[in-house]
Amino acid sequence: MVKTDILIIGAGPTGLFAVFEAGLLKLKCHILDALPQPGGQLSELYPKKPIYDIPGFPEVLAGDLVDGLMEQIKQFEPGFTLGERAETIEKQEDGSFIVTSNKGKKFHAPVIAIAGGLGSFEPRKPLIEDIEFYEDKGVKYFIKNPEKFRDKRVVISGGGDSALDWSIFLANVASEVTLIHRRNEFRGALDSVEKVQELKNAGKIKMITPGEVVGLNGAEHLESVDVDIDGAHQNIKTDFFIPLFGLTPKLGPIAHWGLEIEKNAIKVNNALDYQTNIPGIFAIGDVNTYPGKLKLILCGFHEATLMCQSAYQIINPGKKYVMKYTTVSGVDGFDGTRKEAPKAVVKAIV
Amino acid sequence: MVKTDILIIGAGPTGLFAVFEAGLLKLKCHILDALPQPGGQLSELYPKKPIYDIPGFPEVLAGDLVDGLMEQIKQFEPGFTLGERAETIEKQEDGSFIVTSNKGKKFHAPVIAIAGGLGSFEPRKPLIEDIEFYEDKGVKYFIKNPEKFRDKRVVISGGGDSALDWSIFLANVASEVTLIHRRNEFRGALDSVEKVQELKNAGKIKMITPGEVVGLNGAEHLESVDVDIDGAHQNIKTDFFIPLFGLTPKLGPIAHWGLEIEKNAIKVNNALDYQTNIPGIFAIGDVNTYPGKLKLILCGFHEATLMCQSAYQIINPGKKYVMKYTTVSGVDGFDGTRKEAPKAVVKAIV
Ligand SMILES: Cc1cc2nc3c(=O)[nH]c(=O)nc-3n(C[C@H](O)[C@H](O)[C@H](O)COP(=O)(O)OP(=O)(O)OC[C@H]3O[C@@H](n4cnc5c(N)ncnc54)[C@H](O)[C@@H]3O)c2cc1C
Ligand SMILES: Cc1cc2nc3c(=O)[nH]c(=O)nc-3n(C[C@H](O)[C@H](O)[C@H](O)COP(=O)(O)OP(=O)(O)OC[C@H]3O[C@@H](n4cnc5c(N)ncnc54)[C@H](O)[C@@H]3O)c2cc1C
Repeated sequence: MVKTDILIIGAGPTGLFAVFEAGLLKLKCHILDALPQPGGQLSELYPKKPIYDIPGFPEVLAGDLVDGLMEQIKQFEPGFTLGERAETIEKQEDGSFIVTSNKGKKFHAPVIAIAGGLGSFEPRKPLIEDIEFYEDKGVKYFIKNPEKFRDKRVVISGGGDSALDWSIFLANVASEVTLIHRRNEFRGALDSVEKVQELKNAGKIKMITPGEVVGLNGAEHLESVDVDIDGAHQNIKTDFFIPLFGLTPKLGPIAHWGLEIEKNAIKVNNALDYQTNIPGIFAIGDVNTYPGKLKLILCGFHEATLMCQSAYQIINPGKKYVMKYTTVSGVDGFDGTRKEAPKAVVKAIV
Repeated sequence: MVKTDILIIGAGPTGLFAVFEAGLLKLKCHILDALPQPGGQLSELYPKKPIYDIPGFPEVLAGDLVDGLMEQIKQFEPGFTLGERAETIEKQEDGSFIVTSNKGKKFHAPVIAIAGGLGSFEPRKPLIEDIEFYEDKGVKYFIKNPEKFRDKRVVISGGGDSALDWSIFLANVASEVTLIHRRNEFRGALDSVEKVQELKNAGKIKMITPGEVVGLNGAEHLESVDVDIDGAHQNIKTDFFIPLFGLTPKLGPIAHWGLEIEKNAIKVNNALDYQTNIPGIFAIGDVNTYPGKLKLILCGFHEATLMCQSAYQIINPGKKYVMKYTTVSGVDGFDGTRKEAPKAVVKAIV
């Protein structure tokens, strides 16, 4: 069981920044996310695209913003459980909560911050018989640790950025990469399309287009896939099949936690602290709704900050917290490091 | 008369970022600030100090954050009136407002955004007879345009960062710089103290410590100052006297505009759009108060963003605005420039 002050569900920009604001208040956080990497929509949907409305950044790549946030919160040593979805919640007698993931892992905290964005990202699965059987036995919808594919044969299917980018990446890791797509045309960054063309020309990526994986074979583990090429079937030996057809966010299990839901989002008290109808559970960022709500990154930052003040009250009842400016008081990390502005000196000029 | 969509009072980070959010909604802004430069507290009080709690920046110098904001809003060509204080407001029959500055300049807008921080920064003036007479005739509390001092004699007094930094800067501009302070000890960045010491050794800055300016002379314009040095008086010929004893923020005239004031701040409706009790007047950033308010830069950014949505409704009654992501739709400046993410291509791999 993971014990922490605030369990944050969702490692998007809102959840990440909450770690920093909580840290300033000496509260420890653990983050749970269904995706294999932090950053939420920014990492999963548009890591290489520029954002123009993050205050102070005339332009910042989504992936760079996530890197900045990760660097900023490092001092506060958040725990991460990635690749698992928050499934159920149980209120304890003392008012705290136990959240259980879809893999049975348990998290115990007095405060829950749902920063779930549009919901937990679930892969669009192709309609292939027995595909569930092969999940974790050769079929992968996410690439968590690319080293798993070292010197293995992989078949990737899809026609967008993920399929292109992972084909490029794995071309140098796997022993064989086959990219299969229903059309000849790919949709993605010009760079990526050109790079795949190059790798194909160099014989480092095999391409089957138009083609479609229609069957999976293997007794214990995936051994080969059946590919439909213009009506004819071909069998391709492979260790892994990675269908990359995009993700759809699903509010999913959280929708059944007894929280007030409106327009597929969680209603919160925006006049105070973004708390939900269940005391101790907050909802911040894209996942919440209130009059005038805007689903913007910068709004999630503000909501996370205000939320932490109330979390502090719940965790330290009766204690008063006096806000200090980071510039004036510095930032003391849980890792023993301290950031601090150079102090003014008092010095004679003679 | 300046006509604009939103008159923003205060060029601190909140007011600056409001220009960007308004620009996304095609609303034009004009900014009025009592200080000679944009940036509010950041530029005036701690430009060279790092801030650690701006989301995405593990560390950013206050001055660099202001530069980033100025660069970000450039596309939306805000008007600036600096060095003037908003003094009075009159509601017009059509619901719009006319604001008049302390120098008589008039601004007409349907929406007013007060982003006045802790108030208008007013210089702490030394108690010297007739000092008001010499204001604008040789006595300067702010340095707006350093070129004014080119090849002139200046006397600076004060013992903090401003006195040190302007002495250093003007040493290369003025024909003569005299720095006068009541003590030998200065309080400021180590760098600055050391640099002044160097310039003094090199004969580029004259120092009188301990000393105090006690009298001003000149018929039409300042011609000399009387300095008390340990009881003895010395007369020093000079073109300018620049007392730099710090600034105090004063809510000032805005406190008498009929707005609900609480704890020296303006009460707003934080459950919706940060509007004040007078429809059409909003208060954002440090200047406002509501339950749970935190006087933080990142909160001002959020407040400015939500405020602009309501401003849009006031200015375009009945029109519906559909929010677009900057990443997806790009940013069209009023200056004809366009920022936009590289588009995905659809391209065959052959
Ligand atoms: C193409 C595109 C362009 C955009 N451009 C901009 C822009 O220019 N400016 C801007 O401000 N915003 C933009 N956005 C919106 C921005 O990405 C979102 O506002 C932001 O990602 C919200 O952050 P968040 O942390 O609240 O949620 P998210 O980023 O959605 O992260 C939520 C995380 O929670 C996880 N999660 C959800 N439920 C569970 C569960 N039950 N268990 C475990 N994990 C769970 C999800 O897997 C996800 O990783 C854009 C969005 C898209 C798609
Ligand atoms: C030493 C110090 C360190 C700080 N550290 C941090 C930190 O680490 N993190 C953080 O988030 N915050 C920090 N702050 C607070 C931060 O500076 C403020 O939250 C921020 O400046 C507020 O921005 P603003 O735009 O609302 O107002 P301000 O920056 O105060 O700007 C308001 C502007 O309005 C002008 N104005 C007011 N009234 C009038 C009028 N009638 N007419 C014309 N102009 C007017 C003023 O001259 C001023 O320029 C710190 C503050 C100080 C002093």
